[in-house]
Amino acid sequence: MDRGAAESPIGVFDSGVGGLTVAREIMRGLPAEQIVYFGDTARLPYGSKSRETILMFSRQIIRFLQTQGVKAIVIACNTASAFALDEVSRENSLPMIGVVKPGARVAASATVNGRIGVIGTEGTVGSHIYRDFIRKIDPRITVIEKACPLFVPLVEERWIHDTITRQVAERYLEQMKEEQVDTLVLGCTHYPLLRSMIGEVMGDRVTLVNPAYEAAQELKRLLDSEGLTNPGTDEKGFPYRFFVSDLAESFKEFANSILPYDVGMTQKIDIEEY
Amino acid sequence: MDRGAAESPIGVFDSGVGGLTVAREIMRGLPAEQIVYFGDTARLPYGSKSRETILMFSRQIIRFLQTQGVKAIVIACNTASAFALDEVSRENSLPMIGVVKPGARVAASATVNGRIGVIGTEGTVGSHIYRDFIRKIDPRITVIEKACPLFVPLVEERWIHDTITRQVAERYLEQMKEEQVDTLVLGCTHYPLLRSMIGEVMGDRVTLVNPAYEAAQELKRLLDSEGLTNPGTDEKGFPYRFFVSDLAESFKEFANSILPYDVGMTQKIDIEEY
Repeated sequence: MDRGAAESPIGVFDSGVGGLTVAREIMRGLPAEQIVYFGDTARLPYGSKSRETILMFSRQIIRFLQTQGVKAIVIACNTASAFALDEVSRENSLPMIGVVKPGARVAASATVNGRIGVIGTEGTVGSHIYRDFIRKIDPRITVIEKACPLFVPLVEERWIHDTITRQVAERYLEQMKEEQVDTLVLGCTHYPLLRSMIGEVMGDRVTLVNPAYEAAQELKRLLDSEGLTNPGTDEKGFPYRFFVSDLAESFKEFANSILPYDVGMTQKIDIEEY
Repeated sequence: MDRGAAESPIGVFDSGVGGLTVAREIMRGLPAEQIVYFGDTARLPYGSKSRETILMFSRQIIRFLQTQGVKAIVIACNTASAFALDEVSRENSLPMIGVVKPGARVAASATVNGRIGVIGTEGTVGSHIYRDFIRKIDPRITVIEKACPLFVPLVEERWIHDTITRQVAERYLEQMKEEQVDTLVLGCTHYPLLRSMIGEVMGDRVTLVNPAYEAAQELKRLLDSEGLTNPGTDEKGFPYRFFVSDLAESFKEFANSILPYDVGMTQKIDIEEY
């Protein structure tokens, strides 16, 4: 692979701000890599939409990211990873990873009692993608799935350490405790921001799996194996670019609260043209 | 106006299921009218999106509704009423009403102490459309606005009579009570479904204004004044048709819980083609 390709950026996309938790893990784990981030803020959330719609959206976004010269794509959205990754990978020669498979693999190897919980949006949970992938690895594992649709708006309200959020978490996670899972997958990009509260509710003996972190690790291995790891450049430019389909003020606020950078330079594009 | 036009349906649109609370008021108040309902389920919610995006979406939907031969259009979405009504009305000869002006007018005439509260999504509240319209009617009125982004997902979880929802309502409405509003506008289509809880939190002395109901009353007056009231037909067909941009199962579930009809015949259309 020529040096030019290795120096190209990683494309990362999500339905909105949530995928920034994945971008953040890539920034931490692969600091030599550049990132082009796209958040589909005009059409979020993906969690309540159908497979067909998510596939159409994902194809448009991949066409846009290709115009930015990306060398690989990370689908940072669980719903799009569930609904679109297999098909868009087949259609395209760019290396692509999602967040589901890395998360599922780590969960399957972490469980001792063979009981894994998966929490996510209605779309992710309804697709059973985590369950199906975990069972392919080990059919003896029992997977308990639960949609937690209030977690995203609670995070977006910044009610992170809050009695109401605690009660919502206790209600949503009650079944997981009754089912005695020893491993819980945070199957939505927003959920790592509730990690400490979810950990308190579930207790110390339950391993929390963060697919955002695992996806960054997987990306590292993928780039190494394909000879695409960025050797580092002398360029002084800011290595991260952010694009959205709708320039809502809330994107910037939320992004600035997650990332140690000011994302004020975020650009709006018309994604339906791609 | 010819009889053909009067017998045409009313077009009603919203970002999703919420506008069904408006459709329901039209069904109750104007039982001779047919309705073509469009819910933009592929691109909901509108509340967090920009004026420009909402205007583009509204234009597409109006073009679709015109292909269905509607005689008038009700914008059942507060955000779209706020961001798009004035412009699309100018662009188009069809009579159009939104939910904001009817709600604002009734609130302005209901208040005794001149202190009105408005609750809604971030988009509606951030646009200050209720405040601006109320002040045009009476500049002495004080309007206190508050975004309540958790109310929609709480309603969609069906946690209608629930201790968690009660606490969220108490937190969101605390300022309204401190500010001693005597009138509160339920400025989001989902909120009438929380009417009894909001009423309990605010107390008996506060008048709750439901723009969905007021919009149906306004539509009645508009049809009368334009000679467009349906005289009633001998047709036996079911008078309501439902279209969505994404056929998520949750649309049907929610619709069936709001309406006394089975909306299983809902059709999906590709709204981006309009």
